[in-house]
Amino acid sequence: MVLDRLKQLAQQVTNSVSPPHPFDPLSSLEIETATSLVRGEHGSLFYNAVTLDEPKKADMLAWLADPDHTPRPHRIADVVAIGRGSKVFDGLVDLDERKIIQWKETPGVQPLITMEDLQVVEHICRQDPKVIEQCGIIGIPSQDMDKVYCDPWTIGYDERFGSGIRLQQALMYYRPHVDDNQYGFPLDFCPIFDADKQEIIHIDVPKERRPVNQAPANNYHPTAIKNSGGYRTDLKPINITQPEGVSFKVNGRIIEWQNWSVHVGFNYREGIVLNNITYFDKTENKVRPIFYRLSLAEMVVPYGNPEHPHHRKHAFDLGEYGGGYMTNSLALGCDCKGSIHYIDANLVNRAGAATIIKNAICIHEEDAGILFKHTDFRDDSVVVTRARKLIISHVFTAANYEYCVYWIFHQDGTVQLEIKLTGILNTYPMNPGEDTKGWGTQVYPGVNAHNHQHLFCLRVDPNIDGPNNTVFQSDAAQGPGDVGSVENKYGNAFYAKRKRYTNPVESMSDYDGQSTRTWEICNEDKLNPYSHKPVSYKLVSREVPKLLPKEGGLVWKRAGFSRHAVHVTKYNDNQIHPAGRHVPQTSGDPARGLPEWIAANPNENIAKADIVLWHTFGIVHFPSPEDFPVMPAEPMTLLLRPRNFFTSNPALDVPPSFAKTPSEVLAGKRGYDSNKDKASVLV
Amino acid sequence: MVLDRLKQLAQQVTNSVSPPHPFDPLSSLEIETATSLVRGEHGSLFYNAVTLDEPKKADMLAWLADPDHTPRPHRIADVVAIGRGSKVFDGLVDLDERKIIQWKETPGVQPLITMEDLQVVEHICRQDPKVIEQCGIIGIPSQDMDKVYCDPWTIGYDERFGSGIRLQQALMYYRPHVDDNQYGFPLDFCPIFDADKQEIIHIDVPKERRPVNQAPANNYHPTAIKNSGGYRTDLKPINITQPEGVSFKVNGRIIEWQNWSVHVGFNYREGIVLNNITYFDKTENKVRPIFYRLSLAEMVVPYGNPEHPHHRKHAFDLGEYGGGYMTNSLALGCDCKGSIHYIDANLVNRAGAATIIKNAICIHEEDAGILFKHTDFRDDSVVVTRARKLIISHVFTAANYEYCVYWIFHQDGTVQLEIKLTGILNTYPMNPGEDTKGWGTQVYPGVNAHNHQHLFCLRVDPNIDGPNNTVFQSDAAQGPGDVGSVENKYGNAFYAKRKRYTNPVESMSDYDGQSTRTWEICNEDKLNPYSHKPVSYKLVSREVPKLLPKEGGLVWKRAGFSRHAVHVTKYNDNQIHPAGRHVPQTSGDPARGLPEWIAANPNENIAKADIVLWHTFGIVHFPSPEDFPVMPAEPMTLLLRPRNFFTSNPALDVPPSFAKTPSEVLAGKRGYDSNKDKASVLV
Repeated sequence: MVLDRLKQLAQQVTNSVSPPHPFDPLSSLEIETATSLVRGEHGSLFYNAVTLDEPKKADMLAWLADPDHTPRPHRIADVVAIGRGSKVFDGLVDLDERKIIQWKETPGVQPLITMEDLQVVEHICRQDPKVIEQCGIIGIPSQDMDKVYCDPWTIGYDERFGSGIRLQQALMYYRPHVDDNQYGFPLDFCPIFDADKQEIIHIDVPKERRPVNQAPANNYHPTAIKNSGGYRTDLKPINITQPEGVSFKVNGRIIEWQNWSVHVGFNYREGIVLNNITYFDKTENKVRPIFYRLSLAEMVVPYGNPEHPHHRKHAFDLGEYGGGYMTNSLALGCDCKGSIHYIDANLVNRAGAATIIKNAICIHEEDAGILFKHTDFRDDSVVVTRARKLIISHVFTAANYEYCVYWIFHQDGTVQLEIKLTGILNTYPMNPGEDTKGWGTQVYPGVNAHNHQHLFCLRVDPNIDGPNNTVFQSDAAQGPGDVGSVENKYGNAFYAKRKRYTNPVESMSDYDGQSTRTWEICNEDKLNPYSHKPVSYKLVSREVPKLLPKEGGLVWKRAGFSRHAVHVTKYNDNQIHPAGRHVPQTSGDPARGLPEWIAANPNENIAKADIVLWHTFGIVHFPSPEDFPVMPAEPMTLLLRPRNFFTSNPALDVPPSFAKTPSEVLAGKRGYDSNKDKASVLV
Repeated sequence: MVLDRLKQLAQQVTNSVSPPHPFDPLSSLEIETATSLVRGEHGSLFYNAVTLDEPKKADMLAWLADPDHTPRPHRIADVVAIGRGSKVFDGLVDLDERKIIQWKETPGVQPLITMEDLQVVEHICRQDPKVIEQCGIIGIPSQDMDKVYCDPWTIGYDERFGSGIRLQQALMYYRPHVDDNQYGFPLDFCPIFDADKQEIIHIDVPKERRPVNQAPANNYHPTAIKNSGGYRTDLKPINITQPEGVSFKVNGRIIEWQNWSVHVGFNYREGIVLNNITYFDKTENKVRPIFYRLSLAEMVVPYGNPEHPHHRKHAFDLGEYGGGYMTNSLALGCDCKGSIHYIDANLVNRAGAATIIKNAICIHEEDAGILFKHTDFRDDSVVVTRARKLIISHVFTAANYEYCVYWIFHQDGTVQLEIKLTGILNTYPMNPGEDTKGWGTQVYPGVNAHNHQHLFCLRVDPNIDGPNNTVFQSDAAQGPGDVGSVENKYGNAFYAKRKRYTNPVESMSDYDGQSTRTWEICNEDKLNPYSHKPVSYKLVSREVPKLLPKEGGLVWKRAGFSRHAVHVTKYNDNQIHPAGRHVPQTSGDPARGLPEWIAANPNENIAKADIVLWHTFGIVHFPSPEDFPVMPAEPMTLLLRPRNFFTSNPALDVPPSFAKTPSEVLAGKRGYDSNKDKASVLV
């Protein structure tokens, strides 16, 4: 481990001298170079984001193909800054040329809310007479205002205030003691904060008032557990060690593992970004491209309570706050076991200085159980081989919730995205005997947790043996012919019914659980030599609820990407964010991102073209007391599986735990046993 | 590990003196006692099955409630035997009284095919002139008959032969070398074997003949890998050790772990059977029953090629062969890591002697990643706790396929069933350029793998705080009121729409992916004190394809359980097998098992009643070359999750990896760190 760390530090030094890989996030140096150039020309501004403006795909593909004879794409910083009067500026700074190549004011938009933006609001709420008054009404004396907390959210959209002023809504809580879980003491009113004036401009107060919860604190910290009987003592340690270190190679931010190669990027918005994912195919004896770019591009968490102002609770956690900005440092209280390689994240603060999240990204391996096994029933000749997986992960905290994001690479060529939801439910107070009307659940006396969905948008920029790909929808379907007919006498005929998407409108598709619908990303110009089907990667995703907010409603309008499980668009360098570049306070008239791109070009060809597949998946969460005071991780997952991509199982050469052939059985030989000396697995 | 093994051996001794638990499978001694009693009265018979006749539920619940003052249920052996002329006998032997309490001939049925039944067929095929002739026609000389193999399957049902004669269909293969993968050399004809006459009575020969495959063998054994470049060498070891042993207690076959208690049974048919699953609830300070019995009760694997005789390929692997009989011994080439507790399986052979599968059941723990985590964005105060899981598993080999069955218990009260499919595809030959017509895929030159489904039937006998339970169907649904209406102005209202099942016909329900349908097993007589909703366990299952064979067709008729995702029936001691007690050669007229039980009593009350929930789930498999020559494990899973069962997260007292409260942050204290001394996770 220490070794890994040394390698890592050494690497960082190397990076600082050798030029960064064009996919590398901006370094602290590059970030401050950008802000100093902007400051020089435009004076003092608040910096909202300074991030890599990713190279144009065409330039980048050329460079990747022949880095030695292709001009290296310039390093360009994408800058979002805010001036007085909530003026928003979008700019580009060429760091090689050390000059600003684009600078414009963008009217009527609000960039995301940074952690710094959030931190201010609580302080101001505590001072605000109107807030103090409301606290008094529900039983919090003015001298206890230091016990009042708020989770500031973007306002989403509120037609009373529009998009012109930069606003936050303050979800209010109380803590009898500083260590108490505030979500057990939600307050019933909601102040609106004006970020420009830095003051509370309005408070939404419900007709029915709800005094602050009198139930005892519902905590989960060590003292609380101690007081309720202490920690369980019957859990024996499981030690996971890698005495010879990890099986992956680290070259800058490129990770090579088990024939895979992937560049691990990171930005303030999407968090982890994976680029240029390739696989070395032994059979073809060449490196085969699979994905140009994978990321979680957006998400929305609509809440299901129609009572005002809860409709405003539909956070776009990535577009409105930033999955990168909210990422946990794993420097303390690491979340993984074994030998771990960490990567830090470089971001910017309001003042334009570079900041660092130590150990933002965790890269490690895990044993993954049986990779494959077969026993011949005749003689018990057998092969059993264990699997390994590589996990690239980060955890981000969106106020009350935690999202643990795991990008998992498997030896059989599968890429898996797993997300675990944990953290704490968003809560609202309820009076004794109050009817939740089915919009929520009382998870603790006086605590109402509202129904909600977590809808994530996976952005897949495929490169299946090249950038020109086609998406097919595939449904398991019954064959033609009635039972008794010549063609289907016994009624057992079934097949994969495929629909080829030729334009974005055709591609707007929903999930079908009955037909176990999947989507195949194919390269129609390359057929598998055995199956004669196009080489492909198949999206297998089973947690795909429909968007529950109604068509024409606020969430439906603002979160256009979530209207369908899949959208496919023609690749465009400027289309990264499916809910738009600046998400807070968008009205949805017109809808930003995917809907506007598709409306602009509904008939654009997406067959045998450079395309992007957008997949919305997630869960519907009807809370229950088991989810409180802190929620056991709820996992959800999807797979991108090679189908007709390889000519055989690509993991056949993974050393087995045990193998014995029929002839060895006959000859009474012991066969191959990797565990000979490991008593623990031979008993 | 050695310690565990000693404990285990000690335990076996103890068991042999103290009376077995009423749920314990029959011991070798009990099995042979039963067969000797039967032999005494009925002379020489072939034994098909001798297994525990499980105690009547009423008697057993009484005994469990007060074992000291309740008569211990007698040990009773359920015997299936076959006499001359394929006569089938079903009997019960009271082992306490040492007498046969029931014995009857059952006409017109065929009990399952045992491994011994299978072994004979290959030998006979090799000798049979008609088989030798057919081999000659496709290019296998008669002197090579020792290179001809067959996987004998039950015939399923073939109207030409009916149910009276005990038959098998021989799926034929060839091995140029004894170690070659025969599934790369499938043969095109299918002999029918009469088990009574012990001869081939018919051969199904296709119109279009397909000479034996000339492509080189497609192998995965060590020599083959060596010849194609050898095993990869870049995989560093991951060691998983439990220096202090396991965290579970073993008392006979009762496993106690992290508040869970479960009796681990096993039979020839279902394999692992879990009984009397309870959880010690600290809050209520009592042991709470959750499930009386859980098992995989049946499965069917319909193939989608309508060409004769492929419609006969729809194996009921449990009911026609027995998941217990086919279970792998893990004595060599163990499939798990860490400290493992094994349990042997006691079965019977054809002659009536007891047999043993060493290490048939594997019980072990695994680290399970983050159990819960929350960070306060204000000050980075945090709690992060790792999860552990307990896994009770077995692996069975159904001819070409492997099924790895994992019953997983989680600390948060969740029970998970995970099944991994691996092994080898069932294959059929194809001529160069032959059209698969979409019914299959050429996975290797000359090798056609047909489309198929794997449909499993999970039998859930719930005991949610008592045997009287009710099942509700729950769908995520939009609230009433159009966008703009007073009640739903912004259109965001949604809720859990629930349907209460009061009789079996109402309960016959399918999956809905759009509404992410779940099923809640509730005890309506006990409400959660916080949510005021019935305590429940929710079935969360996302791999639920519809049955693709058509209504009225052979599979639809024979596999009635697979017509719907869920059926609920009133508990009946005699209703364990949803496709019937004796499955081979059932015509489906009438359908056995679930359909006949429900037809017999369609309006039976199943609300607030002792009920059984039958859940059919699985996958649709359209093969691709990646699945060959041996298939990377394809996982599928489902959850039984506590909802409104506990008053809070029941795992709060699991020791965290790291915890720091706001006051500790303020005071600059380090907080709680379980890993202080583990450098590997603190870097």
